[in-house]
Amino acid sequence: MARQHGPQGMNKYRSGNFFEDFRLGMRIAHPTPRTVTLADQSLYIGLTGSRAALSSASTVARRLGLHERPLEDLLVFHIAFGKTVPDISQNGVANLGYARVRFMQPVFAGDTLQVSSEVVGLRQNASGRSGVVYVHSSAANQHGGIVLDWVRWVMVHKRDAAAPAPPTHVPALPAAVAVPELAAGGWSAHAADIASATQVADLWEDYAPGERIEHPGGMTVNESDHSIATRLYQNTARAHFDAQMMAAQPHARRLVYGGHVISLCKSLSYDGLENVMTWVAINGGQHVAPTFAGDTLHCATEVLELIDLGLPHIGALRLRTIGVKNQPGPAAIEFAEGREHSPGTVLDIDYTVLMPRRLANA
Amino acid sequence: MARQHGPQGMNKYRSGNFFEDFRLGMRIAHPTPRTVTLADQSLYIGLTGSRAALSSASTVARRLGLHERPLEDLLVFHIAFGKTVPDISQNGVANLGYARVRFMQPVFAGDTLQVSSEVVGLRQNASGRSGVVYVHSSAANQHGGIVLDWVRWVMVHKRDAAAPAPPTHVPALPAAVAVPELAAGGWSAHAADIASATQVADLWEDYAPGERIEHPGGMTVNESDHSIATRLYQNTARAHFDAQMMAAQPHARRLVYGGHVISLCKSLSYDGLENVMTWVAINGGQHVAPTFAGDTLHCATEVLELIDLGLPHIGALRLRTIGVKNQPGPAAIEFAEGREHSPGTVLDIDYTVLMPRRLANA
Amino acid sequence: MARQHGPQGMNKYRSGNFFEDFRLGMRIAHPTPRTVTLADQSLYIGLTGSRAALSSASTVARRLGLHERPLEDLLVFHIAFGKTVPDISQNGVANLGYARVRFMQPVFAGDTLQVSSEVVGLRQNASGRSGVVYVHSSAANQHGGIVLDWVRWVMVHKRDAAAPAPPTHVPALPAAVAVPELAAGGWSAHAADIASATQVADLWEDYAPGERIEHPGGMTVNESDHSIATRLYQNTARAHFDAQMMAAQPHARRLVYGGHVISLCKSLSYDGLENVMTWVAINGGQHVAPTFAGDTLHCATEVLELIDLGLPHIGALRLRTIGVKNQPGPAAIEFAEGREHSPGTVLDIDYTVLMPRRLANA
Repeated sequence: MARQHGPQGMNKYRSGNFFEDFRLGMRIAHPTPRTVTLADQSLYIGLTGSRAALSSASTVARRLGLHERPLEDLLVFHIAFGKTVPDISQNGVANLGYARVRFMQPVFAGDTLQVSSEVVGLRQNASGRSGVVYVHSSAANQHGGIVLDWVRWVMVHKRDAAAPAPPTHVPALPAAVAVPELAAGGWSAHAADIASATQVADLWEDYAPGERIEHPGGMTVNESDHSIATRLYQNTARAHFDAQMMAAQPHARRLVYGGHVISLCKSLSYDGLENVMTWVAINGGQHVAPTFAGDTLHCATEVLELIDLGLPHIGALRLRTIGVKNQPGPAAIEFAEGREHSPGTVLDIDYTVLMPRRLANA
Repeated sequence: MARQHGPQGMNKYRSGNFFEDFRLGMRIAHPTPRTVTLADQSLYIGLTGSRAALSSASTVARRLGLHERPLEDLLVFHIAFGKTVPDISQNGVANLGYARVRFMQPVFAGDTLQVSSEVVGLRQNASGRSGVVYVHSSAANQHGGIVLDWVRWVMVHKRDAAAPAPPTHVPALPAAVAVPELAAGGWSAHAADIASATQVADLWEDYAPGERIEHPGGMTVNESDHSIATRLYQNTARAHFDAQMMAAQPHARRLVYGGHVISLCKSLSYDGLENVMTWVAINGGQHVAPTFAGDTLHCATEVLELIDLGLPHIGALRLRTIGVKNQPGPAAIEFAEGREHSPGTVLDIDYTVLMPRRLANA
Repeated sequence: MARQHGPQGMNKYRSGNFFEDFRLGMRIAHPTPRTVTLADQSLYIGLTGSRAALSSASTVARRLGLHERPLEDLLVFHIAFGKTVPDISQNGVANLGYARVRFMQPVFAGDTLQVSSEVVGLRQNASGRSGVVYVHSSAANQHGGIVLDWVRWVMVHKRDAAAPAPPTHVPALPAAVAVPELAAGGWSAHAADIASATQVADLWEDYAPGERIEHPGGMTVNESDHSIATRLYQNTARAHFDAQMMAAQPHARRLVYGGHVISLCKSLSYDGLENVMTWVAINGGQHVAPTFAGDTLHCATEVLELIDLGLPHIGALRLRTIGVKNQPGPAAIEFAEGREHSPGTVLDIDYTVLMPRRLANA
């Protein structure tokens, strides 16, 4: 438990962990548990404009086989992620990437989330002034069931550049969550009924690898929008809140929490992906450039793969969504590999969703 | 169900309906259902400052004869209205008017709203580049009961100016919702008890036709306020969200959703109309000019008519509220018919509310 | 009940009370009751970034002996305070101070708060144009139990400078809430379990009188943040909302509600005071200077006193938190008595909290 010494001998100065405070295999129980409510979902809709059918209506959730509507996948992710910030990235330079993010079971109003992490990799930078920390984190509900599980790596300052470097250990990370690891159970055989809620006919079979979907909407970020969202997640990273501190940084502005950008792109991507039931995995993600209040986001999606889950009623789509800012629209977004990103790119995310299949007898 | 073709042959480009896509008598089931919660009400209070007694406290709702407090009338209206936007006004030029809006039964937390529309009128503009669509929309709850019913007309772009004009049909619309259509049943015989919550003695009998009420408050709109409100309603009209797109428009700014202006004026109108139980009708409404972030609203109300419902405990008031922006206050607001609106007018709305009567033996 | 006459003989112009409208001993029942929900708590987290463990998770609340998580202390305060504004400080010049604020029992979702006040002091200013009103206010729940009780004094305009001055009566107010008046009952004998939620070991015994705690965070206030918060509390003071009216005032800007500043400082003070269970008293408080949107807040706390409640499991800490704006951080904050405040000081508040003790056998 925390006992940290700060300036002038103050023994209750909570400075967060620096690179040299992490040890391979170290386990951290993050404060504090959070009981989630439908109010979080309502506020999430207000902040992102989400129209995801499963979390929008109880009637849809019941037709899909759940007893009640769950909180939206990314809302759960942000709350869980936020819990790790004070211990992992309070002194972060940059959040470098995500891997093997698995949405393992739905989270309902009244569930209490508790988050813990294990340090699974360490690599000091050549400068000796910072290093990269890899953490495997997971969120459990009040029954002890894991609801979300992920790896991220973040560059963290050293407190003391003279502190010795730990042995370098970079964990092996999969390019994508393996198909058997995708949580696809528990849905109604009539999942295709979601189409009667979204009024869109396109189901799993109607998507094709290589298909490009341009999402027509655009969303301008306001300073209060992202601040409220990030505080709702109890994320304490000062870069999002302290305009005075950020005025001294290169961009001279508060940064929008990268997760808010993912959420806005997901909300925009509803048009063209209406029958997505839920995200089940984030295979990898990169915040290509920072987003600031006043920026306007657009995005487009490429279908990477149709994944046959061996289930008659549900398939998975592996998708890549790229978000850009302050561009005329999504038309210029390029999905090529091994090249520079298109101008204005802020987000490049590779993820897997569940979508109903057209039943053989339907 | 939607199957639309977009740029470069993309078959999942959702462009919304253009004028030539509408047909007289066409019925549209709007996506997606929405389960409402007290969180929506709480956020609505935060966004508008509403103090309406019925939706503020369970104790008041029970004294008025309901088992629980309902969501506020206009909150329900905005959520229901928002559902129609992707199909009806995604390509709208302007929302021209409302008629025969009827609040038919209270909506409670947990209710799921589903909205559908019928095209009841079409009139192509002389330019041939746009036309006016009249739609009759209604919102049903999960029991199939209609909770809200309204007509609006909106000017919509044509996709192709060469598309042939449909036969002109302009529906007959009443100047006001007929008295027998006002939903006034189900309230406690002791509705006048609302006065012990509001601490204001004025009841139905204390208002007089022609009476003018100046509401003392003023409210400045912030960019995040209206954005969060409009996203909460899952309203997707880009004019409210996409600052980049709007920078190319004449006003060079995002427009505030007109419904948010109605809500702010309703909240300001509490002072002087404290014992309004609920709105039961909007007879007609006009957004005289756009509102932008930074504008400060004031409003005044004229009592148009005292309507005797033939009930001993409840009467109705037909009211006209005019909202202005960036004026010294409500003092200069004029209610004359057949004249120009006062400078700065943004809203002119004619509506009917329920208010308790003074009981004969009280 | 209100019957007020306004400009041009309008008899429903609600102007609020002026100094000459108050009488010593006068009792006011404030409109309107408010039923609180977990949505208010969720929105409060979004607006302030609060991480207070007791209100964050049901599991923590249950371990501390409550059946459910209560709404956060200051959220209850702001809602109750807001109810008094239309009657007490609608025509206020300045909110001068608080005394003997007692948090008497927890408030849970579903509780309905009703607020009333008694005028306990009056002192006309030498100018004859305003005066100071002292009110003792209290908030009751639906069972009639007092949940919050406080005295504040506020400078209020006179409507008519020629109105005669009332006899001066300034109530005797304690420097601090007396120890026997601190509501400390009803907590689990295992209150120290909160440390397993916060992951911080410091309990009551680990604090020392004179100890200084610098809270590392900083928070920039956005215009929408404070507007939404203040409307959520149904606080109608125009200085927070009407930018046009405020443009004519010396600061030419909307004022941030002082209570929002207290809440932001409380949220920042979490780092270093993690195991605070709840605030039980505000002994006194002063808004030293106004806060505006764009200001960045920092704060530091001095431990004034360790109060032994005669209980084995819980003690109280009397604390003084000073908030500053637009300073490099909390390092320059000075706690000396009888001197000028440090530059940039906006808040100086003296309050008492409950914190678990280390059990003898632990």
